[in-house]
Amino acid sequence: MSAPSPHPRPEKGPRAAEAIFDATLRLLAERGYAGLTIEAVAQEAGVNKTTIYRWWPSKAALLRAALLRARVLDIDVPDTGSLRGDLVALAEQVTALVTGVRTRAVVRALASGTGLADDELAALARDFFADRFAREQPVFARAAARGELPPGADPKLLLDLIAGAVWVRAVLRNEPVPPGFAATVVDAVLPGTG
Amino acid sequence: MSAPSPHPRPEKGPRAAEAIFDATLRLLAERGYAGLTIEAVAQEAGVNKTTIYRWWPSKAALLRAALLRARVLDIDVPDTGSLRGDLVALAEQVTALVTGVRTRAVVRALASGTGLADDELAALARDFFADRFAREQPVFARAAARGELPPGADPKLLLDLIAGAVWVRAVLRNEPVPPGFAATVVDAVLPGTG
Repeated sequence: MSAPSPHPRPEKGPRAAEAIFDATLRLLAERGYAGLTIEAVAQEAGVNKTTIYRWWPSKAALLRAALLRARVLDIDVPDTGSLRGDLVALAEQVTALVTGVRTRAVVRALASGTGLADDELAALARDFFADRFAREQPVFARAAARGELPPGADPKLLLDLIAGAVWVRAVLRNEPVPPGFAATVVDAVLPGTG
Repeated sequence: MSAPSPHPRPEKGPRAAEAIFDATLRLLAERGYAGLTIEAVAQEAGVNKTTIYRWWPSKAALLRAALLRARVLDIDVPDTGSLRGDLVALAEQVTALVTGVRTRAVVRALASGTGLADDELAALARDFFADRFAREQPVFARAAARGELPPGADPKLLLDLIAGAVWVRAVLRNEPVPPGFAATVVDAVLPGTG
Protein backbone atom coordinates (compact mmCIF):
# COMPACT_ATOMS: atom_id res chain seq x y z
CA MET A 1 0.00 0.00 0.00
CA SER A 2 3.03 2.31 0.25
CA ALA A 3 3.94 4.54 -2.67
CA PRO A 4 6.16 2.76 -5.20
CA SER A 5 9.80 3.70 -4.85
CA PRO A 6 12.12 3.80 -7.86
CA HIS A 7 14.05 0.86 -6.40
CA PRO A 8 11.47 -1.28 -4.62
CA ARG A 9 13.52 -4.47 -4.71
CA PRO A 10 15.03 -5.64 -1.46
CA GLU A 11 18.77 -5.94 -1.75
CA LYS A 12 19.31 -8.55 0.93
CA GLY A 13 20.97 -11.77 -0.09
CA PRO A 14 24.37 -13.36 -0.37
CA ARG A 15 27.18 -11.60 -2.20
CA ALA A 16 26.89 -14.20 -4.97
CA ALA A 17 23.19 -13.36 -5.46
CA GLU A 18 23.62 -12.27 -9.08
CA ALA A 19 25.49 -15.47 -10.00
CA ILE A 20 22.79 -17.50 -8.23
CA PHE A 21 19.98 -15.71 -10.09
CA ASP A 22 21.78 -16.13 -13.42
CA ALA A 23 22.24 -19.85 -12.81
CA THR A 24 18.58 -20.18 -11.76
CA LEU A 25 17.27 -18.55 -14.95
CA ARG A 26 19.74 -20.38 -17.20
CA LEU A 27 18.80 -23.76 -15.73
CA LEU A 28 15.10 -22.92 -15.95
CA ALA A 29 15.53 -22.13 -19.65
CA GLU A 30 17.55 -25.31 -20.28
CA ARG A 31 15.64 -27.84 -18.18
CA GLY A 32 12.28 -26.31 -17.31
CA TYR A 33 10.99 -25.83 -13.79
CA ALA A 34 10.78 -29.58 -13.15
CA GLY A 35 14.47 -29.96 -13.94
CA LEU A 36 15.56 -26.94 -11.90
CA THR A 37 17.19 -27.97 -8.60
CA ILE A 38 18.86 -25.97 -5.83
CA GLU A 39 21.77 -28.41 -6.08
CA ALA A 40 22.34 -27.64 -9.76
CA VAL A 41 22.02 -23.89 -9.14
CA ALA A 42 24.63 -24.11 -6.35
CA GLN A 43 27.02 -26.00 -8.60
CA GLU A 44 26.59 -23.62 -11.56
CA ALA A 45 26.92 -20.54 -9.35
CA GLY A 46 29.93 -21.95 -7.48
CA VAL A 47 28.35 -21.63 -4.04
CA ASN A 48 27.38 -24.06 -1.31
CA LYS A 49 23.80 -25.35 -1.29
CA THR A 50 23.38 -24.12 2.30
CA THR A 51 24.15 -20.56 1.15
CA ILE A 52 21.14 -20.69 -1.13
CA TYR A 53 18.86 -22.35 1.44
CA ARG A 54 19.82 -19.72 4.02
CA TRP A 55 18.19 -17.02 1.88
CA TRP A 56 15.60 -18.90 -0.16
CA PRO A 57 14.01 -21.91 1.53
CA SER A 58 12.54 -23.41 -1.66
CA LYS A 59 12.92 -23.57 -5.41
CA ALA A 60 9.80 -21.40 -5.79
CA ALA A 61 11.23 -18.72 -3.46
CA LEU A 62 14.52 -18.74 -5.38
CA LEU A 63 12.82 -18.39 -8.76
CA ARG A 64 10.65 -15.55 -7.44
CA ALA A 65 13.75 -13.69 -6.21
CA ALA A 66 15.52 -14.27 -9.55
CA LEU A 67 12.53 -12.89 -11.48
CA LEU A 68 12.35 -9.76 -9.35
CA ARG A 69 16.05 -9.09 -8.90
CA ALA A 70 18.17 -10.62 -11.68
CA ARG A 71 19.93 -7.85 -13.59
CA VAL A 72 19.32 -9.63 -16.88
CA LEU A 73 15.53 -9.12 -16.47
CA ASP A 74 15.86 -5.59 -15.12
CA ILE A 75 14.13 -2.63 -16.71
CA ASP A 76 15.72 0.77 -16.99
CA VAL A 77 12.82 3.14 -16.32
CA PRO A 78 13.17 5.80 -19.02
CA ASP A 79 12.80 9.56 -18.55
CA THR A 80 13.02 11.02 -22.06
CA GLY A 81 10.83 14.07 -21.42
CA SER A 82 7.73 12.77 -23.21
CA LEU A 83 5.27 9.92 -22.72
CA ARG A 84 5.81 8.85 -26.33
CA GLY A 85 9.58 8.75 -25.86
CA ASP A 86 9.30 6.82 -22.61
CA LEU A 87 6.90 4.26 -24.10
CA VAL A 88 9.13 3.77 -27.16
CA ALA A 89 12.08 3.17 -24.81
CA LEU A 90 10.03 0.64 -22.82
CA ALA A 91 8.95 -1.12 -26.04
CA GLU A 92 12.59 -1.32 -27.11
CA GLN A 93 13.47 -2.89 -23.75
CA VAL A 94 10.71 -5.49 -24.15
CA THR A 95 12.06 -6.24 -27.64
CA ALA A 96 15.58 -6.70 -26.27
CA LEU A 97 14.23 -8.95 -23.49
CA VAL A 98 12.28 -11.32 -25.74
CA THR A 99 14.92 -11.48 -28.49
CA GLY A 100 18.17 -11.30 -26.49
CA VAL A 101 20.48 -14.31 -26.53
CA ARG A 102 20.58 -14.53 -22.73
CA THR A 103 16.89 -13.84 -22.07
CA ARG A 104 14.97 -15.25 -25.02
CA ALA A 105 14.78 -18.83 -23.72
CA VAL A 106 14.11 -17.62 -20.16
CA VAL A 107 10.99 -15.66 -21.09
CA ARG A 108 9.71 -18.52 -23.24
CA ALA A 109 10.16 -21.01 -20.40
CA LEU A 110 8.40 -18.67 -17.97
CA ALA A 111 5.52 -18.01 -20.33
CA SER A 112 4.95 -21.70 -20.95
CA GLY A 113 4.74 -22.33 -17.19
CA THR A 114 5.71 -25.96 -17.82
CA GLY A 115 6.29 -27.85 -14.59
CA LEU A 116 4.75 -25.16 -12.38
CA ALA A 117 1.43 -25.73 -10.64
CA ASP A 118 -1.27 -23.33 -11.84
CA ASP A 119 -1.33 -21.43 -8.55
CA GLU A 120 2.49 -21.17 -8.38
CA LEU A 121 2.62 -19.81 -11.92
CA ALA A 122 -0.20 -17.34 -11.20
CA ALA A 123 1.56 -16.10 -8.04
CA LEU A 124 4.89 -15.66 -9.82
CA ALA A 125 3.26 -13.80 -12.70
CA ARG A 126 1.32 -11.56 -10.31
CA ASP A 127 4.43 -10.63 -8.31
CA PHE A 128 6.59 -10.14 -11.41
CA PHE A 129 4.12 -7.84 -13.20
CA ALA A 130 3.11 -5.96 -10.04
CA ASP A 131 6.79 -5.20 -9.43
CA ARG A 132 7.37 -4.01 -12.99
CA PHE A 133 4.19 -1.96 -13.05
CA ALA A 134 5.19 -0.25 -9.79
CA ARG A 135 8.58 0.61 -11.29
CA GLU A 136 6.95 1.99 -14.46
CA GLN A 137 4.59 4.28 -12.52
CA PRO A 138 6.90 7.34 -12.72
CA VAL A 139 6.49 7.28 -16.54
CA PHE A 140 2.74 7.78 -16.15
CA ALA A 141 2.98 10.15 -13.18
CA ARG A 142 5.30 12.43 -15.16
CA ALA A 143 3.06 12.18 -18.25
CA ALA A 144 0.03 13.16 -16.15
CA ALA A 145 1.95 16.10 -14.66
CA ARG A 146 2.87 17.25 -18.20
CA GLY A 147 -0.78 16.94 -19.25
CA GLU A 148 0.07 14.23 -21.80
CA LEU A 149 -2.16 11.49 -20.39
CA PRO A 150 -5.73 11.77 -21.70
CA PRO A 151 -8.41 11.50 -18.99
CA GLY A 152 -9.51 7.89 -18.68
CA ALA A 153 -6.29 6.58 -20.21
CA ASP A 154 -5.45 3.13 -18.84
CA PRO A 155 -1.67 2.73 -18.34
CA LYS A 156 -1.96 -1.04 -17.83
CA LEU A 157 -3.87 -1.45 -21.10
CA LEU A 158 -1.32 0.74 -22.94
CA LEU A 159 1.52 -1.43 -21.64
CA ASP A 160 -0.33 -4.66 -22.52
CA LEU A 161 -0.95 -3.45 -26.07
CA ILE A 162 2.66 -2.36 -26.56
CA ALA A 163 4.32 -5.38 -24.96
CA GLY A 164 1.76 -7.67 -26.60
CA ALA A 165 2.45 -6.49 -30.14
CA VAL A 166 6.19 -6.97 -29.59
CA TRP A 167 5.56 -10.40 -28.08
CA VAL A 168 3.33 -11.59 -30.95
CA ARG A 169 5.76 -10.36 -33.59
CA ALA A 170 8.99 -11.62 -32.00
CA VAL A 171 7.93 -14.69 -30.00
CA LEU A 172 4.74 -16.10 -31.52
CA ARG A 173 5.25 -15.16 -35.17
CA ASN A 174 8.97 -15.68 -34.58
CA GLU A 175 9.78 -12.91 -37.06
CA PRO A 176 12.57 -10.35 -36.90
CA VAL A 177 11.33 -7.14 -35.28
CA PRO A 178 11.85 -4.43 -37.92
CA PRO A 179 13.73 -1.22 -37.04
CA GLY A 180 11.27 1.38 -35.80
CA PHE A 181 8.70 -1.21 -34.72
CA ALA A 182 8.68 0.13 -31.13
CA ALA A 183 7.75 3.63 -32.37
CA THR A 184 5.16 2.26 -34.82
CA VAL A 185 3.47 0.30 -32.04
CA VAL A 186 3.45 3.25 -29.62
CA ASP A 187 2.02 5.59 -32.27
CA ALA A 188 -0.75 3.07 -32.95
CA VAL A 189 -1.96 3.11 -29.33
CA LEU A 190 -1.19 6.65 -28.17
CA PRO A 191 -4.07 8.97 -29.04
CA GLY A 192 -3.02 12.09 -30.90
CA THR A 193 0.31 10.79 -32.24
CA GLY A 194 1.32 9.02 -35.41
CA MET B 1 1.43 -17.08 -54.72
CA SER B 2 -2.27 -17.76 -55.46
CA ALA B 3 -4.97 -15.55 -53.96
CA PRO B 4 -6.06 -16.72 -50.51
CA SER B 5 -9.30 -18.69 -50.61
CA PRO B 6 -11.74 -18.69 -47.68
CA HIS B 7 -10.91 -22.38 -47.10
CA PRO B 8 -7.25 -22.73 -47.99
CA ARG B 9 -6.68 -25.87 -45.93
CA PRO B 10 -6.26 -29.10 -47.83
CA GLU B 11 -8.81 -31.65 -46.69
CA LYS B 12 -6.85 -34.76 -47.61
CA GLY B 13 -6.08 -37.21 -44.86
CA PRO B 14 -7.44 -40.29 -43.18
CA ARG B 15 -11.02 -40.35 -41.88
CA ALA B 16 -9.61 -40.30 -38.34
CA ALA B 17 -7.70 -37.06 -39.05
CA GLU B 18 -9.50 -35.05 -36.40
CA ALA B 19 -8.81 -37.66 -33.70
CA ILE B 20 -5.17 -37.81 -34.81
CA PHE B 21 -4.81 -34.00 -34.64
CA ASP B 22 -6.49 -33.89 -31.22
CA ALA B 23 -4.15 -36.56 -29.87
CA THR B 24 -1.13 -34.74 -31.37
CA LEU B 25 -1.99 -31.44 -29.70
CA ARG B 26 -2.95 -33.08 -26.38
CA LEU B 27 0.32 -35.02 -26.23
CA LEU B 28 2.30 -31.93 -27.20
CA ALA B 29 0.70 -30.03 -24.32
CA GLU B 30 1.32 -32.87 -21.85
CA ARG B 31 4.82 -33.97 -22.85
CA GLY B 32 6.29 -31.23 -25.02
CA TYR B 33 7.62 -31.75 -28.53
CA ALA B 34 10.46 -33.99 -27.34
CA GLY B 35 7.95 -36.36 -25.72
CA LEU B 36 5.57 -36.38 -28.67
CA THR B 37 5.82 -39.63 -30.68
CA ILE B 38 3.86 -40.98 -33.65
CA GLU B 39 3.44 -44.21 -31.68
CA ALA B 40 1.73 -42.41 -28.77
CA VAL B 41 -0.47 -40.39 -31.16
CA ALA B 42 -1.57 -43.62 -32.89
CA GLN B 43 -2.42 -45.24 -29.57
CA GLU B 44 -4.35 -42.21 -28.27
CA ALA B 45 -6.22 -41.77 -31.54
CA GLY B 46 -6.97 -45.48 -31.86
CA VAL B 47 -5.37 -45.87 -35.27
CA ASN B 48 -2.47 -47.85 -36.67
CA LYS B 49 0.93 -46.13 -36.80
CA THR B 50 1.14 -46.87 -40.53
CA THR B 51 -2.06 -44.85 -41.08
CA ILE B 52 -0.33 -41.80 -39.69
CA TYR B 53 2.93 -42.38 -41.58
CA ARG B 54 1.02 -42.80 -44.84
CA TRP B 55 -0.15 -39.16 -44.62
CA TRP B 56 2.53 -37.48 -42.50
CA PRO B 57 6.05 -38.87 -42.86
CA SER B 58 7.43 -37.20 -39.73
CA LYS B 59 6.48 -35.77 -36.36
CA ALA B 60 7.10 -32.27 -37.71
CA ALA B 61 4.77 -32.85 -40.67
CA LEU B 62 2.07 -34.20 -38.35
CA LEU B 63 2.32 -31.24 -35.98
CA ARG B 64 2.17 -28.82 -38.90
CA ALA B 65 -1.01 -30.47 -40.19
CA ALA B 66 -2.55 -30.42 -36.70
CA LEU B 67 -1.79 -26.70 -36.31
CA LEU B 68 -3.36 -25.83 -39.65
CA ARG B 69 -6.32 -28.20 -39.60
CA ALA B 70 -7.35 -29.17 -36.05
CA ARG B 71 -10.87 -27.93 -35.36
CA VAL B 72 -9.91 -26.96 -31.83
CA LEU B 73 -7.50 -24.30 -33.20
CA ASP B 74 -9.87 -23.18 -35.96
CA ILE B 75 -11.02 -19.60 -36.34
CA ASP B 76 -14.50 -18.67 -37.39
CA VAL B 77 -13.95 -15.68 -39.68
CA PRO B 78 -16.58 -13.16 -38.55
CA ASP B 79 -18.79 -11.04 -40.81
CA THR B 80 -20.67 -8.72 -38.44
CA GLY B 81 -21.09 -5.84 -40.89
CA SER B 82 -18.39 -3.59 -39.39
CA LEU B 83 -14.63 -3.73 -38.97
CA ARG B 84 -15.02 -2.99 -35.26
CA GLY B 85 -17.50 -5.84 -34.83
CA ASP B 86 -15.32 -8.27 -36.77
CA LEU B 87 -12.18 -7.36 -34.77
CA VAL B 88 -14.05 -7.70 -31.46
CA ALA B 89 -15.23 -11.15 -32.58
CA LEU B 90 -11.64 -12.11 -33.51
CA ALA B 91 -10.36 -10.82 -30.15
CA GLU B 92 -12.98 -12.93 -28.38
CA GLN B 93 -11.83 -15.99 -30.33
CA VAL B 94 -8.21 -15.36 -29.34
CA THR B 95 -9.35 -15.04 -25.72
CA ALA B 96 -11.23 -18.35 -25.94
CA LEU B 97 -8.19 -19.99 -27.54
CA VAL B 98 -5.66 -18.92 -24.90
CA THR B 99 -7.96 -19.50 -21.90
CA GLY B 100 -9.95 -22.56 -23.03
CA VAL B 101 -9.52 -25.80 -21.10
CA ARG B 102 -8.65 -27.77 -24.24
CA THR B 103 -6.40 -25.19 -25.89
CA ARG B 104 -4.70 -23.26 -23.08
CA ALA B 105 -1.87 -25.75 -22.55
CA VAL B 106 -1.48 -26.30 -26.31
CA VAL B 107 -0.82 -22.65 -27.08
CA ARG B 108 1.58 -22.35 -24.15
CA ALA B 109 3.54 -25.40 -25.33
CA LEU B 110 3.68 -24.03 -28.86
CA ALA B 111 4.76 -20.57 -27.74
CA SER B 112 7.56 -21.97 -25.60
CA GLY B 113 8.91 -23.93 -28.54
CA THR B 114 10.58 -26.31 -26.10
CA GLY B 115 12.12 -29.30 -27.85
CA LEU B 116 11.84 -27.80 -31.33
CA ALA B 117 14.91 -26.67 -33.23
CA ASP B 118 14.91 -22.92 -33.92
CA ASP B 119 14.35 -23.38 -37.65
CA GLU B 120 11.53 -25.94 -37.13
CA LEU B 121 9.77 -23.58 -34.71
CA ALA B 122 10.22 -20.64 -37.07
CA ALA B 123 8.81 -22.63 -40.01
CA LEU B 124 5.78 -23.82 -37.99
CA ALA B 125 5.06 -20.30 -36.73
CA ARG B 126 5.40 -18.86 -40.24
CA ASP B 127 3.00 -21.41 -41.76
CA PHE B 128 0.49 -21.13 -38.89
CA PHE B 129 0.28 -17.34 -38.96
CA ALA B 130 0.38 -17.09 -42.77
CA ASP B 131 -2.60 -19.47 -42.89
CA ARG B 132 -4.56 -17.51 -40.28
CA PHE B 133 -3.74 -14.18 -41.86
CA ALA B 134 -4.93 -15.45 -45.26
CA ARG B 135 -8.20 -16.58 -43.67
CA GLU B 136 -8.66 -13.20 -41.96
CA GLN B 137 -8.17 -11.23 -45.19
CA PRO B 138 -11.92 -11.01 -45.98
CA VAL B 139 -12.39 -8.96 -42.77
CA PHE B 140 -10.03 -6.30 -44.11
CA ALA B 141 -11.18 -6.56 -47.74
CA ARG B 142 -14.79 -5.94 -46.63
CA ALA B 143 -13.68 -3.07 -44.32
CA ALA B 144 -11.80 -1.46 -47.21
CA ALA B 145 -14.84 -1.82 -49.48
CA ARG B 146 -17.01 -0.14 -46.79
CA GLY B 147 -14.44 2.67 -46.51
CA GLU B 148 -13.72 1.76 -42.87
CA LEU B 149 -10.01 1.12 -43.25
CA PRO B 150 -7.97 4.32 -43.01
CA PRO B 151 -5.35 4.71 -45.74
CA GLY B 152 -2.05 3.32 -44.52
CA ALA B 153 -3.73 1.08 -41.93
CA ASP B 154 -1.68 -2.04 -41.31
CA PRO B 155 -3.94 -5.08 -40.76
CA LYS B 156 -1.07 -7.22 -39.48
CA LEU B 157 -0.14 -4.59 -36.87
CA LEU B 158 -3.79 -4.25 -35.81
CA LEU B 159 -4.03 -8.01 -35.31
CA ASP B 160 -0.71 -8.14 -33.42
CA LEU B 161 -1.84 -5.35 -31.07
CA ILE B 162 -5.21 -6.97 -30.40
CA ALA B 163 -3.98 -10.56 -30.01
CA GLY B 164 -0.96 -9.30 -28.06
CA ALA B 165 -2.99 -7.44 -25.45
CA VAL B 166 -5.16 -10.53 -24.90
CA TRP B 167 -2.06 -12.72 -24.70
CA VAL B 168 -0.28 -10.49 -22.15
CA ARG B 169 -3.37 -10.23 -19.98
CA ALA B 170 -4.44 -13.89 -20.06
CA VAL B 171 -1.20 -15.81 -20.55
CA LEU B 172 1.69 -13.71 -19.24
CA ARG B 173 -0.06 -11.80 -16.45
CA ASN B 174 -2.18 -14.91 -15.94
CA GLU B 175 -5.16 -12.75 -14.96
CA PRO B 176 -8.83 -13.31 -15.74
CA VAL B 177 -9.82 -11.44 -18.89
CA PRO B 178 -12.59 -9.03 -17.81
CA PRO B 179 -15.91 -8.94 -19.70
CA GLY B 180 -15.71 -6.40 -22.49
CA PHE B 181 -11.92 -6.62 -22.73
CA ALA B 182 -12.08 -7.54 -26.43
CA ALA B 183 -14.08 -4.38 -27.22
CA THR B 184 -11.82 -2.22 -25.01
CA VAL B 185 -8.74 -3.46 -26.82
CA VAL B 186 -10.23 -2.95 -30.28
CA ASP B 187 -11.37 0.58 -29.41
CA ALA B 188 -7.85 1.38 -28.22
CA VAL B 189 -6.29 0.53 -31.58
CA LEU B 190 -9.00 1.43 -34.11
CA PRO B 191 -8.73 5.11 -35.07
CA GLY B 192 -11.99 6.98 -34.73
CA THR B 193 -13.71 4.64 -32.27
CA GLY B 194 -13.81 4.49 -28.50
